[in-house]
Amino acid sequence: MSERLFYLPLGGAGEIGMNCYVYGYGTPGDERLIVVDLGVTFPDMDGTPGVDLILPDIAWLEARRDKIEGVFITHAHEDHVGAVGHLYHRLRAPIYARAFTANIARRKLEEYGVVDPAAVQTVSPWPETVQAGPFSVSFVPVSHSIPESAGLAIDTAAGRVVHTGDFKIDLTPVVGEAFDRDLWSEVSKDGVRALMCDSTNVFSHHPGRSELSVGPEIERLMTEAQGMVVATTFASNIARLKTLATAAERAGRSVCLLGRAMRRMVEAAVETGLLTDFPRTVTPEDAQDIPRESLMLLVTGSQGERRAASAQLANGKYLGLEMKEGDTFLFSSKTIPGNERGVIRIMNQMSEKGVQVIDDSSGLYHVSGHANRPDLQAMHEVVRPDCLVPMHGEHRHLTEHVRLAEAGGMRGLLAVNGTMVDLSAEPPRVAEFIETGRTYLDGSVQIGALDGVVRDRIRMALNGHVLVTLIIDEDGTPLGEPWCETMGLAEEGQSRTPLVEVLEADLDQFVGRAAKKTLADDGALEKELRTIVRRTSQNEIGKKPEVTVVISRLA
Amino acid sequence: MSERLFYLPLGGAGEIGMNCYVYGYGTPGDERLIVVDLGVTFPDMDGTPGVDLILPDIAWLEARRDKIEGVFITHAHEDHVGAVGHLYHRLRAPIYARAFTANIARRKLEEYGVVDPAAVQTVSPWPETVQAGPFSVSFVPVSHSIPESAGLAIDTAAGRVVHTGDFKIDLTPVVGEAFDRDLWSEVSKDGVRALMCDSTNVFSHHPGRSELSVGPEIERLMTEAQGMVVATTFASNIARLKTLATAAERAGRSVCLLGRAMRRMVEAAVETGLLTDFPRTVTPEDAQDIPRESLMLLVTGSQGERRAASAQLANGKYLGLEMKEGDTFLFSSKTIPGNERGVIRIMNQMSEKGVQVIDDSSGLYHVSGHANRPDLQAMHEVVRPDCLVPMHGEHRHLTEHVRLAEAGGMRGLLAVNGTMVDLSAEPPRVAEFIETGRTYLDGSVQIGALDGVVRDRIRMALNGHVLVTLIIDEDGTPLGEPWCETMGLAEEGQSRTPLVEVLEADLDQFVGRAAKKTLADDGALEKELRTIVRRTSQNEIGKKPEVTVVISRLA
Repeated sequence: MSERLFYLPLGGAGEIGMNCYVYGYGTPGDERLIVVDLGVTFPDMDGTPGVDLILPDIAWLEARRDKIEGVFITHAHEDHVGAVGHLYHRLRAPIYARAFTANIARRKLEEYGVVDPAAVQTVSPWPETVQAGPFSVSFVPVSHSIPESAGLAIDTAAGRVVHTGDFKIDLTPVVGEAFDRDLWSEVSKDGVRALMCDSTNVFSHHPGRSELSVGPEIERLMTEAQGMVVATTFASNIARLKTLATAAERAGRSVCLLGRAMRRMVEAAVETGLLTDFPRTVTPEDAQDIPRESLMLLVTGSQGERRAASAQLANGKYLGLEMKEGDTFLFSSKTIPGNERGVIRIMNQMSEKGVQVIDDSSGLYHVSGHANRPDLQAMHEVVRPDCLVPMHGEHRHLTEHVRLAEAGGMRGLLAVNGTMVDLSAEPPRVAEFIETGRTYLDGSVQIGALDGVVRDRIRMALNGHVLVTLIIDEDGTPLGEPWCETMGLAEEGQSRTPLVEVLEADLDQFVGRAAKKTLADDGALEKELRTIVRRTSQNEIGKKPEVTVVISRLA
Repeated sequence: MSERLFYLPLGGAGEIGMNCYVYGYGTPGDERLIVVDLGVTFPDMDGTPGVDLILPDIAWLEARRDKIEGVFITHAHEDHVGAVGHLYHRLRAPIYARAFTANIARRKLEEYGVVDPAAVQTVSPWPETVQAGPFSVSFVPVSHSIPESAGLAIDTAAGRVVHTGDFKIDLTPVVGEAFDRDLWSEVSKDGVRALMCDSTNVFSHHPGRSELSVGPEIERLMTEAQGMVVATTFASNIARLKTLATAAERAGRSVCLLGRAMRRMVEAAVETGLLTDFPRTVTPEDAQDIPRESLMLLVTGSQGERRAASAQLANGKYLGLEMKEGDTFLFSSKTIPGNERGVIRIMNQMSEKGVQVIDDSSGLYHVSGHANRPDLQAMHEVVRPDCLVPMHGEHRHLTEHVRLAEAGGMRGLLAVNGTMVDLSAEPPRVAEFIETGRTYLDGSVQIGALDGVVRDRIRMALNGHVLVTLIIDEDGTPLGEPWCETMGLAEEGQSRTPLVEVLEADLDQFVGRAAKKTLADDGALEKELRTIVRRTSQNEIGKKPEVTVVISRLA
């Protein structure tokens, strides 16, 4: 049996976020592996109430831990690096990244008590290569909305494949490297078997705009604004932070950073030498003494996150600072679909304070970090792969990206999470399907997405919860009456009597008449009591609650 | 004390949806009242899990039931008419509406068993007036995305005020009346004290487009599509239904309606003579025998609602019909902010089936039913009121609309829900603030938004729920050990022992050592047990659950 090269997305191919891709090389079934990115995605009340973070299910990888040669992180966005801390102890493979990304990854490992300096290795970009078993991997700089983003050139005996990571084509990115077409041409000049390519913006038909273009608009806004200006963007968008801070400085405003992520990212960027001329910042305490019209707060929470600085300022005072009538709040960001409600809540709270809220609807104050459709085509042209495999996108993005590739005369191959693609086959083809999924970080525990815990929470939230307790004495007769407690249910319904009383009366009536046999059988009894609660509740309040029955038998 | 005219929004001013406005005329404190619109808004998992519908809190009105002269419904959208059935028995005032709206309102009352033909009275438009106590009210036709929409000219001894209802300026609305500038000029010619004006689209800077403009694009799409076409839009948008059905017919496709609201709306429009030349439709059963390329399904669920026809088709077969590769799904609608997740879910499910999904991002297949900024200005110009009071919008929309009015040289007055405005004062001014809120229809019961029921559901969803039962015998000593059940919590945490066992061990240890006094005091005991559960859970799984304690004392 000859050796093969495969590609296997475990996360990111069929969703935006939670990127995690595997490449394998070797005899089928015994391949050596590398992992590209270990990202997270974020929970929401609709589907994952109470969950803290969503991680890729790495059971498949964990079972092959001894085969993993390394984990390569393309850039420091949470959906690419966010899971390294949470999953490191399950994989224990060395992590490779460029300096800034490595700095962020190390901070995440430290939170989990991992201080081994060899855990994260800093790699210089192309032409430096990391030898990882049969893989030779190079970080190819690419422009994106965070510094030191990189695509990967992955070489094996089966030839070269290229993994773009997230990217845009930006010739003037403010911070970090401009897109270098010559470099990408050089990487691709001897032929590329397959290009695994970012797909998030495939439905954006206009060419992408450069980070540089937002500077003058932001500066004008900061200059014309009368009161205090508060601006929010993703903390990791170092270029934007610089643009905002520089504009503030030119407009005669002191800059104050609010929010842990904001301070952390600026710190990392300074430590790694990426931010050399960031304006001097003032502390929140000092900011209180600065006239409003000479102040700009740079805050976390562009997605309306409830505990972030923006939400705190919308609610009231935060660290002694407060927004007032005549101030301006700028969303220098795009609202990620699904986060609209939180963002709109903040907008309206600001509006109630008399604050002028400016969002991106004008297109002046934000540009995307991802390649739009024409830029994807440009990337296809530069790399000219034998086969295009779209990644990082929902199903509709991947499908559309395949169509785009095929329209350009290229071979396109759709591979959603769990699809193992044999890249060394001629042409590349699906080899098999692996079971994949999501793991929830829930409090301090990792639980499976399908193990029912979150499903039960959703059920309680939708239906309410009734508890029934019944004590049965030594000779099998009920001791007293069944007792009910309700949570999340209306206190009374159609009979204008407390629901709990109606339930207890119905349960008591049943228990009083129940056969000895039923009373002796926990399972049967529990089922009957549950049915009565659900039926009575339906009659009284029109809802069928979740029911927990506790039968205590005196011995 | 002289008489006065007031305006009091109870819903809709500070939100999009749930419209409910009150006008009062008479001696202060003893005014006669009319109500304009009784709408609903829709629950979501974030803030109102398990709730069926959100209604305005009409406690203030209910307490003054004998003063209400009538309820005037401007048009048949759910956010204006949706609460009439649920609230009729609490107000028992006659409902006035134009024929189509009255038809819909009657259907809603019938669902609540109200069959009194006098409950809903059909009113012809301007110049006909309804005399309602001191009010003389006229329905002034206006274009919107549902037939027979009307503004109201409301006359009292204090002069005329105008309430726009929802509107757009459409000269070719396909179904229903075109915007009639001359009519609105006539209504306004003797002076208008105040204009209560729709605000939802105040941030849309381009002039609105006519319903007529989408027809040719939709027809082209229906003609060019290869397989079956499935189109969704709001069922109440009769003009769009007609456009879609007519386009289908011209493209040689039979039309099949799916979804209860869709059939109901078409029925009402036919009954009231608004739809005279709607293409003949086929039943879902007959549709199964029609070749896919000769079929168009017109379905409910444009907002991704889980139980609507669109979601059912995305999941699999629905009434024997199924989407397949090569079919086309058209969202002839806009996604309302907050509904993105549901809509995107459907898009991806369709994509997985190989269905081409077309949404409104191109702007070709949908136009808004509300007046954009330039159209609002046009309305201001036609009516030229002494004062502009923005309604129907979030706080940010109302504020911006005041700014727009003031920029146009008009007086603007911000009045959010609960703000009673004395319109007869010179100039109009805020008279007082009334407590307002929301009522939840929860199953078959109406509950208050702030009574804690839904808050408890959210807490269970976020934190999980632990039940503790403890039996204490006649002499005050625990009988057996405390018993725990968990719902919505991880099965085990850091000690790798089932959480329930760890909890029970800790509780048992406490109970074994507890003082007689504590064991005798239900309150103290419950508090201690709850604290232990929360502390142990925090240690084990990093979460502090909701806890219900049931102490049973044997007598």
